[in-house]
Amino acid sequence: MEYKKFLMFGDSITEFSFNTRPQPEENLGDQFALGAALTNDYSRKLTVLQRGFAGYNSKWGLKILPKILEYEQNIVIGFIFFGSNDSCAGGPQRVPEDEYESNLHKSVQMFKARSIKPILVGPAFYDSSKWEPSRQDEVRQGYARSNEGFIRYGKITASVASKENVPFLDLRAAMEREAGKNWTDFLVDGLHFNGKGYEVFYKELLQAISDHYPEYHPYNMAITPPYWKYVSEDESKLD
Amino acid sequence: MEYKKFLMFGDSITEFSFNTRPQPEENLGDQFALGAALTNDYSRKLTVLQRGFAGYNSKWGLKILPKILEYEQNIVIGFIFFGSNDSCAGGPQRVPEDEYESNLHKSVQMFKARSIKPILVGPAFYDSSKWEPSRQDEVRQGYARSNEGFIRYGKITASVASKENVPFLDLRAAMEREAGKNWTDFLVDGLHFNGKGYEVFYKELLQAISDHYPEYHPYNMAITPPYWKYVSEDESKLD
Repeated sequence: MEYKKFLMFGDSITEFSFNTRPQPEENLGDQFALGAALTNDYSRKLTVLQRGFAGYNSKWGLKILPKILEYEQNIVIGFIFFGSNDSCAGGPQRVPEDEYESNLHKSVQMFKARSIKPILVGPAFYDSSKWEPSRQDEVRQGYARSNEGFIRYGKITASVASKENVPFLDLRAAMEREAGKNWTDFLVDGLHFNGKGYEVFYKELLQAISDHYPEYHPYNMAITPPYWKYVSEDESKLD
Repeated sequence: MEYKKFLMFGDSITEFSFNTRPQPEENLGDQFALGAALTNDYSRKLTVLQRGFAGYNSKWGLKILPKILEYEQNIVIGFIFFGSNDSCAGGPQRVPEDEYESNLHKSVQMFKARSIKPILVGPAFYDSSKWEPSRQDEVRQGYARSNEGFIRYGKITASVASKENVPFLDLRAAMEREAGKNWTDFLVDGLHFNGKGYEVFYKELLQAISDHYPEYHPYNMAITPPYWKYVSEDESKLD
């Protein structure tokens, strides 16, 4: 029984998207998780592949992507979400703007070469007051993120999406629309998303799928194997 | 990039195991979800496959299993969890005890033939006072579940596990140990699990993996591709 696949491809924000307890020390209970919600929506429709790699940038992603695509047949749709590491002003994770742009183009083209519908996602918000206190050494060496960096790399992402004629999820705009100046509500530690942040991501993603690739919106897909009542009437439906 | 796989194989309790909002009407927020927790634990270690089919029994499961195994290469471990439908006293979902037993043996043997480490799970608890009020017609026709049925089919599951020398998760005993007479705390609608129920399932599952197949316990598995700091020192690690 063969299911087509949805590829979640990106850095830590993608890797952590099945974690319902991102803040265990704060005893907040369980939270919304993007990957869990997608898997639930696509149950018996698509296999959802979590391929997020904490700390990775678009350069390392590009080295991995061909290996993922070579092994995983039948991916039909997916997102590419880097930038939060690439946009560091310095340090080992930094990828310069022109290289980030080129990496995204190449990644999208790899998707297209395999008839995978791409969705691009760019960095959202960054709260240095939460992320940096424990990382003062790095910051002093110029190894630091910034909202300015996130905005610049977000614009590059949007521009690549436009040139490649594929949808772009503007999470920054979506979070601003929903919470205005209270965008820190969407973050766990200044960088990663909490359940509220992932829920904004989820809604934007489903909307983009509905707008651009409606054939892959969960509501438009039939389940395999069929509903048990049909099976109970005619078990040959499972042959 | 090839990941080995964890197969979650069963009925609705397996299918719904990525749903963090099983009781949306009661506004309880998000809850623990077994499938999400497993996917999070096995991130960059194993691909977790959700193959749950609401309403299915062990007979229909057995028709599907060869198709799953034919298409999904490299499954190395997984659970088989039916019985909550099989044990109906009548109606289209019912599977007689001897056939249930035989179906489980065959399913375990299919796992073994492919060197997949099997874990058997049996039905837990049933609260007719929640499930049946909206299904009075069915109940009058003898199409009904019962705790007696769950206990009988649970014992068959344990016995098959013992004969096959594979681990059995006794969710009923685990829930009783944790909550005593308050076992209804683990159910959403009298039949399906809420987050608390899935968390018992999760703990029992990880314990069984630790006891019987420690090489597949998440703590004992290395991540692929490597931690980003190692990559940043030597990018050839991604070649």
